[in-house]
Amino acid sequence: MEVQIAAAKVNKYAVSESGDTLEVIERPNGGVSVVLADGQSSGRGAKAISQMVVRKVIGLLAEGVRDGATARAASDALFTDKQGKVISTLNIASLDLSSGTIVLTRNNPAPMFICRGEQIDILKEESIPLGTSRNVRPLITEITIEPGLIVVIYTDGLVHAGKRRGTPMDVGATLRSVLEEQDPPPQMLADALLGQAVSLDDNRPADDISVLVLKVTPRVGDNVRRMAVRLPIDGVARVS
Amino acid sequence: MEVQIAAAKVNKYAVSESGDTLEVIERPNGGVSVVLADGQSSGRGAKAISQMVVRKVIGLLAEGVRDGATARAASDALFTDKQGKVISTLNIASLDLSSGTIVLTRNNPAPMFICRGEQIDILKEESIPLGTSRNVRPLITEITIEPGLIVVIYTDGLVHAGKRRGTPMDVGATLRSVLEEQDPPPQMLADALLGQAVSLDDNRPADDISVLVLKVTPRVGDNVRRMAVRLPIDGVARVS
Repeated sequence: MEVQIAAAKVNKYAVSESGDTLEVIERPNGGVSVVLADGQSSGRGAKAISQMVVRKVIGLLAEGVRDGATARAASDALFTDKQGKVISTLNIASLDLSSGTIVLTRNNPAPMFICRGEQIDILKEESIPLGTSRNVRPLITEITIEPGLIVVIYTDGLVHAGKRRGTPMDVGATLRSVLEEQDPPPQMLADALLGQAVSLDDNRPADDISVLVLKVTPRVGDNVRRMAVRLPIDGVARVS
Repeated sequence: MEVQIAAAKVNKYAVSESGDTLEVIERPNGGVSVVLADGQSSGRGAKAISQMVVRKVIGLLAEGVRDGATARAASDALFTDKQGKVISTLNIASLDLSSGTIVLTRNNPAPMFICRGEQIDILKEESIPLGTSRNVRPLITEITIEPGLIVVIYTDGLVHAGKRRGTPMDVGATLRSVLEEQDPPPQMLADALLGQAVSLDDNRPADDISVLVLKVTPRVGDNVRRMAVRLPIDGVARVS
């Protein structure tokens, strides 16, 4: 099998720094974790918060701490620092090769989707962001790694897209329409969701938007791990 | 403009963990850094070393420490821990948007290539791995970000490929032949170099091999940042 991960990320219109931070790290016992945080508000302050949360989480994951415990630790650290005045969402998607599962950790009111063939499930139990109080608990979902599995995770910029114009985004409907195409690669899924949101906001996103897609495919190629990043830059000192 | 980063990575034959660790992080003042370390020997011990080095470096980069200082700090930490008995190479490639430059930090005997159009320069001044002594210094090269620029970085598995069979890899020649194609994307360059090395080792790589390519292109698309990872997995608990 092969696990393919794709992310697409855009800043709020006319804001040079995204409040969303997304990073991928190798896990100490094999596999990788993708960590996505969305700091409250936008711009530089939000960036500092989401970077602090992601930094805390990946530092602990690197020490072998389990995903749920890293989310609790990041929440406690944020609450201690900001006394509940600043919050951040967090999603962790971990490919755990020792258990053969994908472990999904969520502290984010925005739901996640899990797709297998024609079946599209939405995970939308109530979930509280980090830093809101002591005793914030993450929701943990564990799924066996198997070909055809697709997981879609996003920040609330996707949920709120189009609301300003009264034409709110329907994430599930967009996802379903793309999945009807023959076996779309994860980058196509992420780009389609982000593109629809940006279009509903008249190409001026009302918030930072990040979309993350994981897909398990039957093995088709070689043994090579690959990673690619594309980073548009406007002159100098604009993107983050 | 757009900066595209691509990496391709393969384990030593029949070894389940790569001693090479490669990670990408966002810099606190914008831009990203790619950090590549190759721990001495192979397998689990080497992995622990290279992960420790990368963890140290990205932790400091996240705090705003300059690249050269992070390399010195990681070297001192490794030397203190292992008393010079275990060493690790380190390469950092940073896209520094505040200065409009790519900053290349090297503690690795393996050279780097910098290409602009037809011109291919090799950077091969002597460079010492981390952890060899106190006072290890990195070599720092700073290049203006401009369209057409290509940087190629790799671990010594690429250099040593084919030596067992008496047909050693000529990295520069392979690079030149790929660059003669019309404007190859960075993933094609990374894959071609890695593919040539693996082929010279009879598809049984004698060492972990990692190839990292950065390319600056004129802006062609949208404002979206993208990231993609492909991770082959054999059943369970095999890849790292």
